[in-house]
Amino acid sequence: MKKIIIMIPARLGSKRIPKKNIRYMQGKPLIQYPIDIAKSDSRDMEIWVNTEDERLGTIVTDMGANFHRRPKELAGDTATNRDFTYEFLRMHPCDYVVMLNTTSPLLRQETFGQFIDKIIDSDADTILSVVTEKEETFYQGEPLNFSLNEKINSQFLPSTQKIVWAMTGWKRDTFMRLQEQGENPVFGGKIVLFEVPKDEACDLDTEEDWKIAEGILQSRSETHTPKYLEL
Amino acid sequence: MKKIIIMIPARLGSKRIPKKNIRYMQGKPLIQYPIDIAKSDSRDMEIWVNTEDERLGTIVTDMGANFHRRPKELAGDTATNRDFTYEFLRMHPCDYVVMLNTTSPLLRQETFGQFIDKIIDSDADTILSVVTEKEETFYQGEPLNFSLNEKINSQFLPSTQKIVWAMTGWKRDTFMRLQEQGENPVFGGKIVLFEVPKDEACDLDTEEDWKIAEGILQSRSETHTPKYLEL
Repeated sequence: MKKIIIMIPARLGSKRIPKKNIRYMQGKPLIQYPIDIAKSDSRDMEIWVNTEDERLGTIVTDMGANFHRRPKELAGDTATNRDFTYEFLRMHPCDYVVMLNTTSPLLRQETFGQFIDKIIDSDADTILSVVTEKEETFYQGEPLNFSLNEKINSQFLPSTQKIVWAMTGWKRDTFMRLQEQGENPVFGGKIVLFEVPKDEACDLDTEEDWKIAEGILQSRSETHTPKYLEL
Repeated sequence: MKKIIIMIPARLGSKRIPKKNIRYMQGKPLIQYPIDIAKSDSRDMEIWVNTEDERLGTIVTDMGANFHRRPKELAGDTATNRDFTYEFLRMHPCDYVVMLNTTSPLLRQETFGQFIDKIIDSDADTILSVVTEKEETFYQGEPLNFSLNEKINSQFLPSTQKIVWAMTGWKRDTFMRLQEQGENPVFGGKIVLFEVPKDEACDLDTEEDWKIAEGILQSRSETHTPKYLEL
């Protein structure tokens, strides 16, 4: 049985949306979304919030998570993902760690559960969440997945897959070894892609992003019968 | 002075979301969004709804648009964009046509105005709307715009641009000539890309897409003060 740990990185000093982790989205603080998602899974997994802030640590403990106190030197803007994840992994033996981000309030329990299934079933070192798209795409000014000589229905286009950082899984041993060798552990070893439905992916970089995510959440909770113009 | 005509293609027989053009989204029938956007521009441009349906023709006339009756043979599922646009252009002399889609309720007046500016200022044959993204992207299983050897901040990634069909501009002469030569006029001649803000682009292929767009529209109309968890 693989031991899987959930790590939720959270800082208080977010820049473009200040204090976003403790800001309410649709009646619930942002930090509580990943905690609730992780708790909803019936499998027994430790849930740790990785933060430098003592006060946030207290709050997440009340919400049912554990508090991993991140060292001050890994709390700044220049601290990288690989550094604070490595520091976390040194303290917490496991087979796999799942980095679950607070910027994923749209993630559904079912999708999270399938992600955990994927980790259990695979021998991957890195499991990345992606959204698959079939749209005519330009890259460096040139058509990537379509030809200017014909217009075909987009369902027949080759797809692109973009990484969303909602959830990422790493095999602990590989991650630590690569980091210690000075190699990049974030995309380390055997990579497997996990597809996330596009309506569960969002950015939370700007105030506009925040409103969009909030609007999507709100629309999910509403059921209404379509109305039509009379002909 | 360039003569620009707005063409709004609309059928009643949409498949995955039935009758979507006459369905209400946030209190307004979908077909009315592009008509209102086009009417909001102070420049004098004819607005035509291109549809096979007489009843829809009557409705859009009441909304302030003109009714271009599309021939029955161009109204089926196999009729292509290039064919019905060509048929339209034969009947309507102009310098440029803008195809404004009903699947763009999120488009803002300001962005539409900038698109028209771009047509006026440019000598392009085709003006495509794109959304620019900076996300780690895989194409055919390989990293496209990033390297597995390092994790860099996504703001420094080379961007991809995907076409959104919210609005497309074509120079009439070029479009007609290419179509008559059996070449693809949709991506014809000199192509210029026009950037649309990402929160103005949406799909309306599925019921889920519909709810997302409706949620985004709703969130725009609401102003509220952020609330925070107390520390």
